[in-house]
Amino acid sequence: MYKVKVFVTLKESVIDPEGAAATKELKKSDFPVDNVRVGKYIELTIDQTDNVEDAVHDMCKNLLVNTEVEDYRFEIEEAAAK
Amino acid sequence: MYKVKVFVTLKESVIDPEGAAATKELKKSDFPVDNVRVGKYIELTIDQTDNVEDAVHDMCKNLLVNTEVEDYRFEIEEAAAK
Repeated sequence: MYKVKVFVTLKESVIDPEGAAATKELKKSDFPVDNVRVGKYIELTIDQTDNVEDAVHDMCKNLLVNTEVEDYRFEIEEAAAK
Repeated sequence: MYKVKVFVTLKESVIDPEGAAATKELKKSDFPVDNVRVGKYIELTIDQTDNVEDAVHDMCKNLLVNTEVEDYRFEIEEAAAK
């Protein structure tokens, strides 16, 4: 059993309206921030011992990530079976 | 200048419809996954040298995170000024 954490970010060339809105609001509150980008953070468990990395790439490319406009990276850590 | 990465997750007691849908679809495609939870991953830069951690807590509590239903954690790393 592994725990997987996937970080999904919009590609740099893609406009991020949610991030732009957050930047604006934070600046309005006098936080000296910039370049706020909002992506997705996905956690899951996978009950498989071989080729976990390949499986995660497959899941990302086929379902979790829109690779036309998004990039992803992930971390895999061993988890105790429940 | 610091780069900040914020991970926002739904509290465990909160139902996650998007995660439940992803779990179902991934299982349908024969991935042996469970407990898919979908949160937010926010990146930003902050141009401040003191009390950066406090500022990030303030931003999270006041704008980026709904602390009624979400938890957050963050990482701060030094970034070269552009």
